[in-house]
Formats: sequence, structure tokens, C-alpha cells
Amino acid sequence: MSVVVRNVERVQRGVIEAFASLGVATIHEAQRRTGLMAPYMRPIYSGAHIAGSAVTVSVPPADNWMIHVAVEQCQPGDILVVAPTSACDCGYFGDLLASSLQSRGVLGLIIEAGVRDVRSLTDMRFPVWSRYISAQGTVKATLGSVNVPLVCAGALVNPGDLVVADDDGVCVVPRSQTASVLASAKAREQKEAAVRARLAQGELGLDLYEMREALAAKGLTYRDREDH
Amino acid sequence: MSVVVRNVERVQRGVIEAFASLGVATIHEAQRRTGLMAPYMRPIYSGAHIAGSAVTVSVPPADNWMIHVAVEQCQPGDILVVAPTSACDCGYFGDLLASSLQSRGVLGLIIEAGVRDVRSLTDMRFPVWSRYISAQGTVKATLGSVNVPLVCAGALVNPGDLVVADDDGVCVVPRSQTASVLASAKAREQKEAAVRARLAQGELGLDLYEMREALAAKGLTYRDREDH
Amino acid sequence: MSVVVRNVERVQRGVIEAFASLGVATIHEAQRRTGLMAPYMRPIYSGAHIAGSAVTVSVPPADNWMIHVAVEQCQPGDILVVAPTSACDCGYFGDLLASSLQSRGVLGLIIEAGVRDVRSLTDMRFPVWSRYISAQGTVKATLGSVNVPLVCAGALVNPGDLVVADDDGVCVVPRSQTASVLASAKAREQKEAAVRARLAQGELGLDLYEMREALAAKGLTYRDREDH
Amino acid sequence: MSVVVRNVERVQRGVIEAFASLGVATIHEAQRRTGLMAPYMRPIYSGAHIAGSAVTVSVPPADNWMIHVAVEQCQPGDILVVAPTSACDCGYFGDLLASSLQSRGVLGLIIEAGVRDVRSLTDMRFPVWSRYISAQGTVKATLGSVNVPLVCAGALVNPGDLVVADDDGVCVVPRSQTASVLASAKAREQKEAAVRARLAQGELGLDLYEMREALAAKGLTYRDREDH
Amino acid sequence: MSVVVRNVERVQRGVIEAFASLGVATIHEAQRRTGLMAPYMRPIYSGAHIAGSAVTVSVPPADNWMIHVAVEQCQPGDILVVAPTSACDCGYFGDLLASSLQSRGVLGLIIEAGVRDVRSLTDMRFPVWSRYISAQGTVKATLGSVNVPLVCAGALVNPGDLVVADDDGVCVVPRSQTASVLASAKAREQKEAAVRARLAQGELGLDLYEMREALAAKGLTYRDREDH
Amino acid sequence: MSVVVRNVERVQRGVIEAFASLGVATIHEAQRRTGLMAPYMRPIYSGAHIAGSAVTVSVPPADNWMIHVAVEQCQPGDILVVAPTSACDCGYFGDLLASSLQSRGVLGLIIEAGVRDVRSLTDMRFPVWSRYISAQGTVKATLGSVNVPLVCAGALVNPGDLVVADDDGVCVVPRSQTASVLASAKAREQKEAAVRARLAQGELGLDLYEMREALAAKGLTYRDREDH
Repeated sequence: MSVVVRNVERVQRGVIEAFASLGVATIHEAQRRTGLMAPYMRPIYSGAHIAGSAVTVSVPPADNWMIHVAVEQCQPGDILVVAPTSACDCGYFGDLLASSLQSRGVLGLIIEAGVRDVRSLTDMRFPVWSRYISAQGTVKATLGSVNVPLVCAGALVNPGDLVVADDDGVCVVPRSQTASVLASAKAREQKEAAVRARLAQGELGLDLYEMREALAAKGLTYRDREDH
Repeated sequence: MSVVVRNVERVQRGVIEAFASLGVATIHEAQRRTGLMAPYMRPIYSGAHIAGSAVTVSVPPADNWMIHVAVEQCQPGDILVVAPTSACDCGYFGDLLASSLQSRGVLGLIIEAGVRDVRSLTDMRFPVWSRYISAQGTVKATLGSVNVPLVCAGALVNPGDLVVADDDGVCVVPRSQTASVLASAKAREQKEAAVRARLAQGELGLDLYEMREALAAKGLTYRDREDH
Repeated sequence: MSVVVRNVERVQRGVIEAFASLGVATIHEAQRRTGLMAPYMRPIYSGAHIAGSAVTVSVPPADNWMIHVAVEQCQPGDILVVAPTSACDCGYFGDLLASSLQSRGVLGLIIEAGVRDVRSLTDMRFPVWSRYISAQGTVKATLGSVNVPLVCAGALVNPGDLVVADDDGVCVVPRSQTASVLASAKAREQKEAAVRARLAQGELGLDLYEMREALAAKGLTYRDREDH
Repeated sequence: MSVVVRNVERVQRGVIEAFASLGVATIHEAQRRTGLMAPYMRPIYSGAHIAGSAVTVSVPPADNWMIHVAVEQCQPGDILVVAPTSACDCGYFGDLLASSLQSRGVLGLIIEAGVRDVRSLTDMRFPVWSRYISAQGTVKATLGSVNVPLVCAGALVNPGDLVVADDDGVCVVPRSQTASVLASAKAREQKEAAVRARLAQGELGLDLYEMREALAAKGLTYRDREDH
Repeated sequence: MSVVVRNVERVQRGVIEAFASLGVATIHEAQRRTGLMAPYMRPIYSGAHIAGSAVTVSVPPADNWMIHVAVEQCQPGDILVVAPTSACDCGYFGDLLASSLQSRGVLGLIIEAGVRDVRSLTDMRFPVWSRYISAQGTVKATLGSVNVPLVCAGALVNPGDLVVADDDGVCVVPRSQTASVLASAKAREQKEAAVRARLAQGELGLDLYEMREALAAKGLTYRDREDH
Repeated sequence: MSVVVRNVERVQRGVIEAFASLGVATIHEAQRRTGLMAPYMRPIYSGAHIAGSAVTVSVPPADNWMIHVAVEQCQPGDILVVAPTSACDCGYFGDLLASSLQSRGVLGLIIEAGVRDVRSLTDMRFPVWSRYISAQGTVKATLGSVNVPLVCAGALVNPGDLVVADDDGVCVVPRSQTASVLASAKAREQKEAAVRARLAQGELGLDLYEMREALAAKGLTYRDREDH
């Protein structure tokens, strides 16, 4: 039952590049608020922003053997997504594995567990979004699987899905929906740029979004402090 | 029952400025250790330090409509304080709302929920103290209230209260007590400067604070490792 | 029953210096994955890395009196290790105590509770690993003990034990084992440097560690996406 | 600044009795979803249901001295509401204090901290809603206050407010609003009884609440599995 | 995008009945340790044990409108599985909805959020496994979906999947695998009964499972206290 | 380094029996508030109360092999104390192991991890205090140790120490101190019985403990509601 699936289809390189300038919040909105991982997934250093194809790794608690197996399946532009089969705060990953992944062009790691050597990883500029930071090591005793569907931090990830991560968190876009999400995100971004300019000049969202009528209809009332 | 209270009285500008150089820990001590929010309220970037008058916003879980309403009530020197009526980790606030608030001279945001676009907010130098960072969006469907008393992260906040936030957390000073707390904080700060200088030169707190007698009276004993 | 033990034996200065270049993850591995504190112990600023002899302080919840007592027992090269007798998020420690410790050559603080004045501590470059950051003050009313064995963040610490802390967390090495752990850590580090170079050049861990046979023996199977 | 306020006005006995048959969920709804404590406040045994006037106690972390002070201020029909000034999981309260309170006719305890002797308290049928169960004792070293306004588990409690607690949690009704909330809760309860009967007979909420049109207007679509 | 999928295929009644005598731990083992929800999913009363077909409901945070929609899709033998699109501790469900579901033969509720009226639900013997108990109500303002795949407490649930819940937690069995998992679980149960009898008579697992050799091979050593 | 220590000295049977009637809170007080495990250690059913000698088991995360090894080392009157080397919520223990332990006269299990089959364990009246309840299984791949000192839920446990557990939690008494703790606990219990009787009759703790003078000296003031 432990399997490594090879030759998973990836998101097209051009599509990935187009996503690289889009933030997680924008993409998450553009795909109707689905695919977001839980907010406890935090970057080990701020400012990183990556987009790539998921290579998924289902690992036993406290056992990182399958990450070693997964390295071989990675291609340039991939992002490793690791989820333990039950909650675990061990440090599954450090600078040795990062060296290996970086040499293969892997963009970063998403792991719902712990990571270590965070100083070295920061110096190497190998970004990681993890639930924990921990020096606690793992064993290599039990199998898991590579490139199977899994749930990571509450989000379903299929191998080859697009993963985007920045300081706001991590979002997964199903491979079949990347084109439509991209179009929607770009449109959203353009619209927001225009709105931002107007808001920055002092125009009120209440007016810009024409909210006043709906608020009044719901029963919102205003009163001055004096009658309070 | 959903109400926006206008023309709330603020803390005097001069008083606020005087507070701006005082840290949260000092102010919290100066007002007898009251008014501190829970330690899970963390800044999205380090080094920010603000003091201003609270504009309070009571919001439903996962619904940020009232923040849009609150913007209109803000003045230069205000700080927006947002609390959901039940626990919520959604990202209520991003760079669009920040643009709007910044254009009105608002100093920052305190929110017992989530915030997003933290990279942009950091670049804009719009400081936020929040419980969560999350790209998860909210809806605009249900009313709340602006400028009503509320509990945020365990602290009672009345509209117009003074709010101070720095890397140590967030503290609320009731408007009526700002003068006395200011005096007390200044005095405390002066005293601490003198103490710090003596401690930095190697004088022991045990002597400086004259603790030895009280410790002995309580029964503290010393022994060398040999008799251990 | 409240006692201060004086003249605790420390780890030899030369040994400490040898440890100072070794990371927590390496040391933790070198001593067979023992002695690590829980991952909720986080540094107040990143990049700090210290190694020193533990001066232990057992404190009541919300009472920092004994830290003042402990200062007198500190020597250059020591690290203060503070654990409350029940869980507490108060800010036991700020820049005054740090000035005092720094004047005595103490390298840093490990505390399974809260710390405050983190901006000043960062400016002073006095590193702290703590469970919480909180401006909430403590009292000076109840005794504890200095230089007794205690459990801090799940790790047993005896006075005089070696403590090492970096961005990955905090690890304790029993004083009697420092020599053997040092030798083992150095060996490990050398080995890892060689491995890292090979991995960085693209060699697979699967081959380098000769894992393929063991994986196959456990039943790992490979298949292409098509047969999935 | 540590004060005991005597002769606080209570909710009228008749009003309290009328509330005793109403559940927390109903009352919370009846007062427009305000006043609920956080869901981590759990009863030490199931099935208890109390309503009474709040005697509030603000206590230092890990110090239960003021609970002893508060006992003297209690009358039959009161409920003790205890909140520490910073988070604490110590066991502030056990069967001795319960004996004392029970002899004065106090109905139960609400405490945002720990409680102990839960087996005895259960045998005595003295109900407690607490955040923690812990045998860890407290000291009697620092003052607090009795019958001052405080925040307990996120809810503002003024002395003399009505407190209602059952298996769903704890709710606070401001004393001035007890009459209107009572009327509203009773009406709600009657309405719910009628609705419950209809639902139990198989009528759909969709029809009973006439939701179908609003759902369609929002864009809800139905499709059969085949077209999925 | 908000959709209700009708006529979802269920697990066969006979298969469900066969599962009803099997515990969650056994089933989880029988399907190779997949499909288990996180351990924070707890029953509101102990002793309940249900197996049925999942009707899934994806709900916005703090909005239970779609549960009303879902009721109509339920059949006898179903179990409602509800997951919010972001974390929420509100009480989505109480005795009115339970009356409605019970009248349709629904066996219970699994919800990664809060539930209320737990006393009534217990009296009705309508079992619920939830993350929270909370009297906090929800709104009916935003759509979600019924009978779409969702992630609940870390487990992927497809509509029509088999759900089993008991005092140990909640497990999901994909509909296509129910037959094989059932066979495996029955076999496991029989084997365990035999093992249990031998263990209860004092036979050691070390011998019964023939572990001694493998332990020795791994390097396990025995020594008496004296040489310790 | 993986070792099983045999023939550990136990606490004398008579002493254990004398402890069996004493509650955890009393014992914890009697030994000066040391040795208490963290309050997240909860019994799987209420009302159990055990006292016995600790057989300690240090286990890897998600690996219960060593529990099987430990069974052989158990004698009537023992209590198994299990701590993972890093945090883990897996279900290490179920009714098979309980059958084995019960056949050897073991009184119960203390585990800072998960347990499963809680319904069967409850029916068997085999009490467990655990951090989690989880059906998630473990592997048998990596060694640990039996009867070595370990930290469990924040408390240091040496093999052969006395462990007492009841509804308030779990407390450890070092074997060398059992006699003195027993004497102190008995004295405390007697004193409390007398106090309880007086309090139950309405005498105030303020008078009984003669607190009024100390409170006044600290500055406690009383005022009536009118002057508030």
C-alpha cells in the first residue's frame, strides 16, 4: 500500500510563472475561498513568495524516510508538500535535505509538522512553511507514500496541484483550475489596484462600494455620543 | 441594536504624544497592572510603537462589514480596535482597508482575529497587532456596532480610551485616567533609568531593593554545593 | 525548603567554547535525541546562539523574586534557566534584570514563562528563549529555589548542566556527558559537511545512504501515473 | 486600590427563579447574543443548571486569598465569579471553600482558572464551571478586589449581574436588563416548543421558516448526482 | 458555486449494519490507518456508537443556513458531517435541528465546530461528535454546499462515504472500500478476541507476538537495578 | 542505549495502601506542591483513584513497542507511566494491552499521549490518565527504555516512585519521601476534616484562619456600594 507515483503531471511552467506575482490572499479569493491551509502554517522567514507544482509526501509520525524517497521524484519548479498521518511536532527536515532539493530546483517546502536548521535554511534562502520549528529528529523505519492525494493543514492536495505560499500562508489550486483561477486573480488584482488608489486618496469604502443603503436596510443606526 | 456612535470624545492630542515614548510594560505597571490584552496579540512586524484613541468595532465572526463602517468615524491619531463576538481566525483586514485608514491618519489596528496582506502592510508601515495571520476572507452580511464598549483579548475597551501597543503587546488606559497614568509612568521611567544604570554597573538588585532581610524572614536558606 | 545552592560546579570554559559553534539540532542528535526542550520555547530575536552553564531557578507562578536572588549566583558564561512550578504566561523578566545579568557576564535567559521589554532586550543583544512575550508583571511575595534540579519545558535541568540555544530551540547536556557529546557532535558535523557537499551536487540520499534495498524489502512500490 | 465593595444590589429573587428554568442558549439568544463566556468554560459534572447574582472576585495569578475575603460578602442565591488578572491554571478552589460557600447558600462557582477536589465537589453537588481542573495549590500573599467589574472568559461581569450556567456554558445578563431578557427568553422558549413539535413530526425547517425563496435568490442550485 | 447535490449513492444498508458492531479503532486499523478525524472531535456523551452514510455540509464560519438545507437531503441511516470553511467555535446546531434530523431517521452529527443544547441532545439520545460545545448562535446569511467533498477535522469525506463514530473518535471509510474494510475488520476482530483471551490469562505479548528476537537484534539490553 | 532495568525497588505495599485513601490534592500539598503532572492529563472515566509504584516507559513518538516490553517487568500494584520522547497524540494503548496488564495486577496507566478503546477500558475498569483519546495506531519499529528516569507531563518520574491519580490529576512522590509525605498528608487530612466541619457550619475562613489583620496590613479596604 506504500507507493511512489512517478511522472505526475505538473502545472505548465508558463502558468506557474504567471502565478508567482500573485499573493495568496488574492488567489484564495479568486478561487472562491477554497484551498487555504490553516493559519498555523507559518514561514520560517518573512518575505518568501513561491508558486510551484506539488509533490506530495504522506509520512508516518516522526519518520522522514519518505522525504528521502520523494527527492528523487522532484523536478525544477516543484514544491514539496508533506503531511504526517497523525499530528507530530518533530523536525522532519533540515539543511541536508534542503541542499538536496535545492540542487534539483525545488522551490520550497510545505510541512504540517516541524522543521530544523532554520538558520541555515534562511541563509540558503530555502523557504519553508511549517507548523512547528523543532530540533527533534525523526527515524527511518516505516513507509509512507509519494504523490498520493493527502490533506495538509486542512487542505486537500493532489499531486501536481499548484501551491502558492507567501507571508499570509499557503493556498492550493487544483491543477485543472489554474487557468480560470489565474484569469480571475489577475482581474481581481487590477480591480484592487484601482480601488486602492481611490481609498488612499480618502474616498470611503462606504461610498465606493455603495454600502450605505444596504446597511440602513439591515437597520444600522447612527447616534451622537450625547444621546448614548 | 446595531449602532454607530459618532463624535466620541478622544484623549487630548498632547497627552497621546506624551504617551508615545512610553512602553506598554511601563504603562501597564503605572496603571497598577490593569488593561493589558492577552499575550497572543502579536505585532505583524517588530519595532512598531503606537499610542492613540480607540475607535471600537464589534464584529460578527467572519464578517468585516462594520470595519468599512468604522473607517468613516476615524480621525487622525485614532487606533482601530476590533473584536469578534465569537472566536474567529479569518483575515478581516488587508491592504485596501489599511490604505483607507492610513489616508485618514489612523495609526494602526488592534484585532482579536486574523489579518492578511501582511507583506504589503509591512511595506506600508501600517502596524497591526492581531491574534492570527490568515488569508481567509470574510463576508459582508451581518451588522455589528461601532464605538460601543467591548472586550478585546480579555481587556475592556471603551471608545475614546487610550491604546498603546509595542513589541510587548497592547495596553488600554481608560480616558479618564490618562493624566494620572502618564504622571505615574513618567515617574516610573525616571526611577528605572537610575536603577538600570546601577544594575548595569554590577550592583545587585538584592542590595539595591533591600531584599535580603525579607527573604531571610521568609526562610530562604543558602548552602554550598558540598552540603547538598 | 527554599534553598539557594552556591558554588555549583560549571562546565569547563574550554568545553563551552567548543560547543558554541555547534547547533542545537546537531548536539541533540549527538546525545541520542535527549535533552531537548519543547518547541514552544522560541527566541525573542533570530540569529542568537549561546552555550553556557545552567543556573536554575524554580519560581512560583507570577512571582519573580527568586530571579533577583539568582543573579548573585551567576558567573560569566552562565545561562539562567527559569521554570515556574505551574504554568504561567506573566512577564517575569525585563531590561532591568537583563542589565544586571549582562553586567555579570551571563549569556542569556531560558524561561518557560513570559518575558517583556523585548525591544530593549533585542537592542541590548541579550537573548531570551521563552514560551510567551507578555508585559504582565509579577510579584515578589513567595520563595522558590536556586540551583536545584528542575523540569523546564519538558527537559530535566541540573544546575551546572550545559545549555545550548539557537533558532531551532534549546537543548540541555548533562555536565558529566559534555565531553562525549562534544566528540560525537564534532564527528557528526564533519560527516554532515561531506554529505551536504554531495547532496548539493545532486547525489541522491537514496543512493548515498543506500536506502533502496531496505525500502524495497519493506514493500515500497513504484508506479507511473498512468496506472494510478 | 484593593477594595471590597459591600451591599451590592442583587437581582430580585423572583426574577432569578424565573430564569432558573431557562437554558443558557435561550438566554444568550434572548439578549441578542451578548454576554456569553468562552466555550473553554466547562462544568465539572454534567446536568447542573444554576442562575444567581454575581459576586465578582479579581484575583492575582496563583493566589486565592481574595476568595476567602469574598465568602463573607456572599448571600443565598449568589454565584461566585472569579477571574485572575493574568492566565493561570492553578487550582484556586476546593471542597473547603465549597463547604463555606454552600453553608451560605451560594449556588456555584464560575472561575477562569483551575479547581480541585472535583470528586468531593461532585458528591456535594456544588457545581463549578472552570477553565481547568488542577490539584496545584495557590498562595495567600497578594490582594485583589471583590465586587468590582471584571472580564471573565471574555465576558464583562458587573457585581450583581445575573449569571446563568448549564451544560452549554455560562452567560451573563446585566442586572438592568433582566426583566426584558426574561420576557424575551420566555417568548422564545414558547415559540421554540411549537417549532420543535412541528420539526419532530417531519416538517422541514426550509418550509417552516420559509427559506426557499431567499436561498434561491442567493443563487443556491440543486443538481442530481448524475450531472455532478 | 453553491450547490446541493441530490440522490447521492449511499452505502448499502446491510453493510452499514455489519459495521455497527465494529469500533472505530478496529475499522481504522482495518483500512490501514487512514480516514481518522483529529482527536479533538469528542462525543457530547459517552457510550454512543453509530455507523451511517455521510451527508456532507460545507458551511461558512458562524453560519448554519446550509444545515437547514441539508436536512431535506437526509434519509434514514444517514449521518450529517459538517465542516466550516474556516475555524469556528460557534454553536451551529441544537435541539431543534436534532428533532428535525431524528424525525428523518438520521443517526447523528459530526461537526468540526460547536454544538449547543447538549443536555437536550443527550436526553434525546441524539449523538454528536464536535470540536466545541458553545451556546453561541450563528446567522443565516451566506450559502455553502451540500453533498460536496470536504475536509472535516483533517479527514477527506465524500458524500455517501461510510462514517463510524464511537468514544474513540470518528473514522471515514470510502464507499468503494466498505466491503474490503468490513472483511478486514471482522478478521481483525476475531483475531483480537483470541489474543485478548490469551493475554488476559497472563501470556506475554512479547511471546505471543514473538518479539524477543527482533528486539534483541535492534540492540535492546536488560540489566538489573544493581548495575544501574 | 535502549535498556530495560529489572528488579526496580518498589514502594512498600503497606505504604501504598495507606496512600490509597488520600487524594492527589492533599498529597501534592503534603509534599510542598511538587510532583504534579500538567492538568491536561485527564482520566478516561471519572471516579477512579489509584496509588502504586511506577514502571516507567520512554517511548519514541507513535511507537508502542516498548510498552509490550514493559508489561513483563510489571508486578501487582504497579502503575505504568509512559512518556514519548516528543509530543504525540497517537493511541498507544488499547484493551489488549490492558488485558495483559490487568492479568498481572497492574492498577492503571499514566500516558502523556493518546489511548484508545476507551469504552472497553471503562467497562474493564482499567483506569487511564492520558493527554489524548485517539484511535490512531502506532508502529513497533524503534526501541526505547523501561525503568529509566523520565519526564511525564512536566513531572520527573523515577522507576519505583509512588504515583497517585484521581479526578484531580496525577502526582508523583519520590520513593524515598513516601513515609514523610504520608505522615504529612494524614495530618493535613485530619486538620482539614476539622476545618471543613467548622466552615460547613458557617464559620468564616477569614476568622478561622485569622486573616483579617494581615489583609488590613496589606491595605485592603472595604466600602459600601453607595460610595463606589
